[in-house]
Amino acid sequence: MTVRHVLTLALALLLALPAAAQPEGPLTIERQGSFFIGGREVQADALSTLPAYAPSGTITVDQVYVRYQVPPAAGGRPLGRPLVLVHGCCLTGKTWETTPDGRMGWDEYFVRRGHPTYVVDQAWRGRSAGSITGINRVRSGKAPADELPTVFSAGHEPAWAIFRFGAAYPQVFPGMRFPLEAQGEFWKQMVPDWLNSLPTPNPTVPALSELARKLDGAVLVSHSQSGIYPFQAAALDRAGIAGIVSIEPGACPAADGDMAPYKGLPVLVLWGDYVELAPRWTPRLKGCRDFAAAANAAGGKVEVAVLPEMGIKGNSHMLMQDNNSLEIADWLAGWLARTTGSGK
Amino acid sequence: MTVRHVLTLALALLLALPAAAQPEGPLTIERQGSFFIGGREVQADALSTLPAYAPSGTITVDQVYVRYQVPPAAGGRPLGRPLVLVHGCCLTGKTWETTPDGRMGWDEYFVRRGHPTYVVDQAWRGRSAGSITGINRVRSGKAPADELPTVFSAGHEPAWAIFRFGAAYPQVFPGMRFPLEAQGEFWKQMVPDWLNSLPTPNPTVPALSELARKLDGAVLVSHSQSGIYPFQAAALDRAGIAGIVSIEPGACPAADGDMAPYKGLPVLVLWGDYVELAPRWTPRLKGCRDFAAAANAAGGKVEVAVLPEMGIKGNSHMLMQDNNSLEIADWLAGWLARTTGSGK
Repeated sequence: MTVRHVLTLALALLLALPAAAQPEGPLTIERQGSFFIGGREVQADALSTLPAYAPSGTITVDQVYVRYQVPPAAGGRPLGRPLVLVHGCCLTGKTWETTPDGRMGWDEYFVRRGHPTYVVDQAWRGRSAGSITGINRVRSGKAPADELPTVFSAGHEPAWAIFRFGAAYPQVFPGMRFPLEAQGEFWKQMVPDWLNSLPTPNPTVPALSELARKLDGAVLVSHSQSGIYPFQAAALDRAGIAGIVSIEPGACPAADGDMAPYKGLPVLVLWGDYVELAPRWTPRLKGCRDFAAAANAAGGKVEVAVLPEMGIKGNSHMLMQDNNSLEIADWLAGWLARTTGSGK
Repeated sequence: MTVRHVLTLALALLLALPAAAQPEGPLTIERQGSFFIGGREVQADALSTLPAYAPSGTITVDQVYVRYQVPPAAGGRPLGRPLVLVHGCCLTGKTWETTPDGRMGWDEYFVRRGHPTYVVDQAWRGRSAGSITGINRVRSGKAPADELPTVFSAGHEPAWAIFRFGAAYPQVFPGMRFPLEAQGEFWKQMVPDWLNSLPTPNPTVPALSELARKLDGAVLVSHSQSGIYPFQAAALDRAGIAGIVSIEPGACPAADGDMAPYKGLPVLVLWGDYVELAPRWTPRLKGCRDFAAAANAAGGKVEVAVLPEMGIKGNSHMLMQDNNSLEIADWLAGWLARTTGSGK
């Protein structure tokens, strides 16, 4: 290794270094709290079938719950970009918090590395309210059963292959890193999904645009079912979006679509292991590679990173909860520092 | 004022002083995270009506989501008791977080005063999953419409009087302290309530017993619809319960019931203003006074505190969000220090 090599490496390490890092021990927060983005008022006539609660009235739906923590700037170093963490199908913001086996989640780890983090519950899920009037209209005879809302839960067994713990329940891919010994705690994270009762784009999408604008330069980090949302948000209003990290997206934008919204925007599409062993996922990775090629031909800055191709093996679909989740977070923090710069 | 009076007052102030207080500025957390308490696995055959998701499989329900922050012990002073904060009807743990008008919530304020706080989402609400199979069984023709689950939303207008913003929508009680200018943000906190589809006791109740036991001496702080839960939890298993703060409970235990679970247990039943102007609430306060008399006759330590009787006027049902919410928190912190001692 030459002196020049050493200097180049040192510079790269410095650039990747966390701003105001608090690697361990007590954590100091500059400010924290929660709020909602979006939401609209709806007049309804089937809020209740109970005598204690009136059937008619106004409710508010489509808002997106956001919980945030901002670390202090320390030693004159700028903070990292604010990260907006968006969960996937059948899950909530819990995805990014303490792992099923009790390790630190990305929500806290990135704060320790100097990034403000904003964890959301998608519209109509978790702490973000939906409407149940479609149930009560049928129950009270105002509508037929086929007008019931479309809502589903993913069972443990079918979810097993989707999350790529193994090819099928209860098989396990060799070397797979999800903490299956704590799977009972993971299943508790799963909630019913009202996604298919919602308009397109999902109300979460404009909320992400609005949140990014409010944060004046945020990186939208999505996962799985929400993988496409940051792209849709950028197409809607790119003003506040400083970058996109789409983790194992259910879909990337179509390669024959309009690439203008992504021109010059740092985008990372991140994948775990075993994709080629999972028929559900293989075409999705291919679709993202096609998108990256099309976007980059049109002035985009899209990288498709497949962890095993970088020597990081064994990751499931839930890589933010796998037993090397913080190693991946470190790599990601480096990517963010290199490509998306500092927050304001 | 004699010297003895001064010394007594000083001692009282010292005892009421927060342990390891961080009154303002950046906040240091010893540890934080989230987990679930409780939960059971259910085999289901109507998880989905969509081809992409299998109808049959196992889901986990009845668990209770818990987010916590523990402050550091500082200056050799013990921490305050852990507080478990339980929201009421049609709301989630958001109740205790940043207020609708953007002020600090009790979740953080009590951490700053040296209390670990544990904010829950009741079973089947927020991040705590319920089952939607009752909807899909009807939609797929397996069950008639009258077997649909009982679920309701509270509309803004009927909720107005329940929350005692005024006698009826849109009237306002004189001097009422809820930040109505931010009511739009408050309505976003409201979610559908599946309470009436759940068994008795609500699965939240055994979860609270289990959580208190795990914390080895916690104070259960409930509100409104959950007001009765800490009493039910104490009747079930009192081992971990160091005290109860029931804020504007929908019900206290019946005065002719078994008072043994409450013997020697510090209990505070806390009320805001305008109760005598609200026909829904007047009998509930009376019921709590009757309970207190019965419990105290049997060796209980139940206090019923009505804020306007202490000179604190104008509080609504949502007193943890009113514009004097931190003044009430200070008073409550003093009560906790006097009656429930320190955490372990």
